[in-house]
Amino acid sequence: MVGKNQIKLITALQQKKFRQEHGLFVAEGAKVISELIDSRFQLEQLYVTEPLFDSIGAHLKTVVHPTDLQKMSALKTANNCLGVFRMADPGPLPHSGLIVALDEVRDPGNLGTIIRLCDWFGVDHLVCSQETADVYNPKVIQATMGSIARIQIHYTDLTSYLINTQLPVYGTFMDGDNLYRETLMDGIVVFGNEANGISTQVEQLVTRRIAIPRFGKLQMTESLNVGTAVAVVLSEFRRGS
Amino acid sequence: MVGKNQIKLITALQQKKFRQEHGLFVAEGAKVISELIDSRFQLEQLYVTEPLFDSIGAHLKTVVHPTDLQKMSALKTANNCLGVFRMADPGPLPHSGLIVALDEVRDPGNLGTIIRLCDWFGVDHLVCSQETADVYNPKVIQATMGSIARIQIHYTDLTSYLINTQLPVYGTFMDGDNLYRETLMDGIVVFGNEANGISTQVEQLVTRRIAIPRFGKLQMTESLNVGTAVAVVLSEFRRGS
Repeated sequence: MVGKNQIKLITALQQKKFRQEHGLFVAEGAKVISELIDSRFQLEQLYVTEPLFDSIGAHLKTVVHPTDLQKMSALKTANNCLGVFRMADPGPLPHSGLIVALDEVRDPGNLGTIIRLCDWFGVDHLVCSQETADVYNPKVIQATMGSIARIQIHYTDLTSYLINTQLPVYGTFMDGDNLYRETLMDGIVVFGNEANGISTQVEQLVTRRIAIPRFGKLQMTESLNVGTAVAVVLSEFRRGS
Repeated sequence: MVGKNQIKLITALQQKKFRQEHGLFVAEGAKVISELIDSRFQLEQLYVTEPLFDSIGAHLKTVVHPTDLQKMSALKTANNCLGVFRMADPGPLPHSGLIVALDEVRDPGNLGTIIRLCDWFGVDHLVCSQETADVYNPKVIQATMGSIARIQIHYTDLTSYLINTQLPVYGTFMDGDNLYRETLMDGIVVFGNEANGISTQVEQLVTRRIAIPRFGKLQMTESLNVGTAVAVVLSEFRRGS
């Protein structure tokens, strides 16, 4: 049986304030939960509608009625399991390799897509400005499809981080150099806010301005969605020339 | 003044059945509407909350109260304008150039992203299976950000179309050839359903199996989201080798 207070705690975790207060977050669905269990995130409690998951998290498992699971769930239609996990420290800020940095990417779906792309293209570290969407937001967790288990995600003052790095800092701008003709080396690649792009403060710290060439009849003011821009840029970094 | 019947018609257009019955669809927001007005789509009626748009569609313009506009709107928070447009015939199926084909892409957001990518990468024709999300769905219209004005979107029996083409047919599969090492020529590039990928029937008509190489520690069963896969593949076709 699950008590009212437990349901109340779990729904409270849909809000950043309570996630930070408790150091906990929620993931739903067998796939995401299995990947998190195999990662640095510690499982605190697992709620299942049937005695699933025989092999994992056995002593932390509570069988719940579907009605109760729906009450706990952030999804319109709850899955058959929900896990409560402890947040994990991503460790020190990275200073080598290929790194993605986000300057106020606000949409949880976009953040989830970007984390999945980092996973695909072997980018181990994602550095986010404090104003970027919260990685522990249930929408982000679901959108990452488990990739969150493998990427170190840091929140920091992005300006200070970029001031203190020795790495090249790439940024995408409409007037940047043709991405396809550049020699791309390891460094930090910054992507900006959905509406406003890279902020003026961060722009001043960009050492290599790049652009994704446009082939269509699109008007000058247009830009790609940030998720698809990350896809094109990371593919180009990894493909080799 | 806007009558109840007008509001009823416009909200009915949120359903495919009524869109097809009337041959009409709805777009919201000044940017999308302006781009549609400049395109092959004919404006039937424009509803605005203030006497905006002085220069365009003047004789078709009705000033509405924000409350009425909210009633008509498919958005949680209505914009300040809503246009009703007549559907346009995309013309004959394409048989040259670079063409994107969708085999049952169901998510309106994904379809919108793909249309925007076609626009960016200069792909003029998108050929969709009958089971693909409807391009006139309000969510698709909003997600395309106006790109729908520039791309010809066809719905057809995809299998017949592929049987009757002389062009190479590319498809992305986990076991395909490394995209980055292939010589890519004009042809039809097929992308599959979000959960099941390319259907068996269509797979048999693919003449060139390609794969987006994975650089991370991701498990074998994973794949990229269809929108980001289209971004990587179109970028690779257009960049030149």
